[in-house]
Amino acid sequence: MTTTATSKTTDEVQLRELIAEQRAAMEAKDMDRLMKLYIDDVVVFDVKPPLQLQGVAAYRQMWEACLPYMEGPYRLEVRDLQLTVGGEMAFAHWFLRLTGLDVGHPLPWLRNTAVYRKVGGTWRIVHEHVSVPFHPENGQAALSLEP
Amino acid sequence: MTTTATSKTTDEVQLRELIAEQRAAMEAKDMDRLMKLYIDDVVVFDVKPPLQLQGVAAYRQMWEACLPYMEGPYRLEVRDLQLTVGGEMAFAHWFLRLTGLDVGHPLPWLRNTAVYRKVGGTWRIVHEHVSVPFHPENGQAALSLEP
Repeated sequence: MTTTATSKTTDEVQLRELIAEQRAAMEAKDMDRLMKLYIDDVVVFDVKPPLQLQGVAAYRQMWEACLPYMEGPYRLEVRDLQLTVGGEMAFAHWFLRLTGLDVGHPLPWLRNTAVYRKVGGTWRIVHEHVSVPFHPENGQAALSLEP
Repeated sequence: MTTTATSKTTDEVQLRELIAEQRAAMEAKDMDRLMKLYIDDVVVFDVKPPLQLQGVAAYRQMWEACLPYMEGPYRLEVRDLQLTVGGEMAFAHWFLRLTGLDVGHPLPWLRNTAVYRKVGGTWRIVHEHVSVPFHPENGQAALSLEP
């Protein structure tokens, strides 16, 4: 069922807490806190190469390689989050962008799809796909689109 | 549960049929056949702009705008399909590329994430996210990656 402001199941509340915790852990750059939210064999289609990251160790390695380029505090701005719960599985999608980093230009809006499963009573992230579209006519990523 | 060669539930069989039907409808360029597989309010994060397509009519319009550039027969090559079923919801991801089109260069491998729900006893596509990664250092889409 799709969440609404007036009717929220326990699963929906837990999933919104998971999404908020993921965002907080990313903003805190706390990798231990972040990686707890993923299953061990998560598959991530990330915004930059390679095509896929297989397993939470590979995902963590990607983050650790990025952190030196993310000096100082930053925030994740989120728009249009939609969450759907279906028993033992759920998914959500939203737009996000990093703000506050001193990179000299605005960072692009990204599309995020996340899939969740309940593992031992706890919702975990089993798959993520983060991307920007690209222009087929010139091979450039579409970095200035607004949601 | 993740599908294996030796243990397949009815849901898994139906979902694999849906995925095969989607591919066949795309290869046949049969939009009526293809659109039947999607819920009316599907949200698609497509490989090219805009950021999202909301609703099956918008998705169909995108396809119809593309078909004039897809003269002649083509095939969808698929690799590394993984399907997970969890009650009334399921998801799959795979790599795909178009082959056989006379465009003078190989087309890139795309990442595809699809989310399904059972609606009135029938599995339908409720969300898709298709993309290539991009190189943050130059803003170019990563068009030559191999799975």
